Amino acid sequence: MLLYNSAVSGNCYKVRLLLAQLGLSYETVDVSVVDRSGREELLGELNPGLRVPTLVLDDGRPLGESNAILWYLGDGTSYVPEDAYERAQTLQWMFFEQYSHEPYIAVARFWIAYSESPEEFVGGRRERALKGGYAALDAMEGHLAERTFLVGETYTVADISLYAYTHVAHEGEFDLAPYPAIRVWLERVASQPGHVAIDA
Amino acid sequence: MLLYNSAVSGNCYKVRLLLAQLGLSYETVDVSVVDRSGREELLGELNPGLRVPTLVLDDGRPLGESNAILWYLGDGTSYVPEDAYERAQTLQWMFFEQYSHEPYIAVARFWIAYSESPEEFVGGRRERALKGGYAALDAMEGHLAERTFLVGETYTVADISLYAYTHVAHEGEFDLAPYPAIRVWLERVASQPGHVAIDA
Repeated sequence: MLLYNSAVSGNCYKVRLLLAQLGLSYETVDVSVVDRSGREELLGELNPGLRVPTLVLDDGRPLGESNAILWYLGDGTSYVPEDAYERAQTLQWMFFEQYSHEPYIAVARFWIAYSESPEEFVGGRRERALKGGYAALDAMEGHLAERTFLVGETYTVADISLYAYTHVAHEGEFDLAPYPAIRVWLERVASQPGHVAIDA
Repeated sequence: MLLYNSAVSGNCYKVRLLLAQLGLSYETVDVSVVDRSGREELLGELNPGLRVPTLVLDDGRPLGESNAILWYLGDGTSYVPEDAYERAQTLQWMFFEQYSHEPYIAVARFWIAYSESPEEFVGGRRERALKGGYAALDAMEGHLAERTFLVGETYTVADISLYAYTHVAHEGEFDLAPYPAIRVWLERVASQPGHVAIDA
C-alpha cells in the first residue's frame, strides 16, 4: 500500500498507528501540509478532498479521510467492534473528532507550531479555537471519567482517532492538567501493543 | 424511537429522510439551534457532543452524530453498500461532508438565514465560508460529472448526507448555476422512492 503522508499531521498519524498495530507494511509519499501548491496534480485523481492521508491499496484503488481509512483497515479486526450499536458509537466518536475536536485542537496546533504565520492566529479565530477545543476536551473527560476506552471498554479506532491530536494538544497551547481522565486514557492508549509515536 | 430534532437543521433532516425511506416511525423532541441554553440539561446524559440530531433507540440507548445515525439505521439495507471498499468510500464522503462541506455551507446558511445576528457573518469569517464551500462543491462536481451517485452507482447514505445541506446551499448564498452535475444529482436524489422534503 502507498500512503500519501505528512509526518506532522495527526490525521496521517492515525493511519500509521493502526498500520503498525496491524503489522501491515506500506510505503509513503511525503506531502507538505504547509505548502499546499501542487495538491491538485498530486492527489486530484485519488481524493476529491485533496487531503492527506490518502491511502492507495495494493490494487490501486484510493481511499481518503483518515477515519474512513481506519474503518476500512480495522473492520474485521479487534480494532472495530462487532456489535451494531458499538460500531455506531465508534463512528459517533470519529465524527465528533472531525467536527468538534480536530477543527479546534488540530487547527490551533497547526497555526501555533507548524504554520509559517502564527501571528495570524489571533483575535476571534484564536478565541473560537480555544473555546471549541476545551468544549471537546470537556465532552471527552466526562465520558472517560467512568470508562477505560471510548467505546465498549476495548481499544478501538475511536481511541486511535481521538488520541492523534489530543496527545499533542499542548502544541496548540491547550492545558490538559484539569483533565485527569483524559491523561490516564492517553497513557492507556500509548501502552497498547504495537503502539508507535507520532514521530516514530 | 425518539429523535431530538430541529426542523431547520440539515443534520437532523438527514435522519428524518432515511427514517422516512425505511418506513420507520418515531417521535420528536424539538430543540432550538438558535437558543442553545439548556442543552446540557436536555442532552447531557445522551450525547457528549450536546448536538442534534440525537436518536434514542427503543431500548433507551442514545446515539449522536447524524452520519453515525445514518450508518446505524442504514447498515443491512440497500442504503449502505455491502462491499468493503464501497463501504469505506461511503464513509469517506460522509467524513468529507462533516469536515469540508458542512462547516462552510451549513454555517453560511445558518448565519444568513437562521441566526439572529446575520450582520456578524462578515469579513474573514464570511470569506472562509465562501472559499471552503465552493471548494467542497468543486470536489463534488468533479466526482459527480461521470457518476450517477456518489458511491457505486447506487443511492446510499453518502448521498443523503451530502444532499441535506447542498440542496439548500442557496440559503447560504451559494450559486449552484456553475455546477450542472450537482444540480442533476440533486434532482435524482429528490426523485428516490420515499423522499421527503426538509420542511415536510
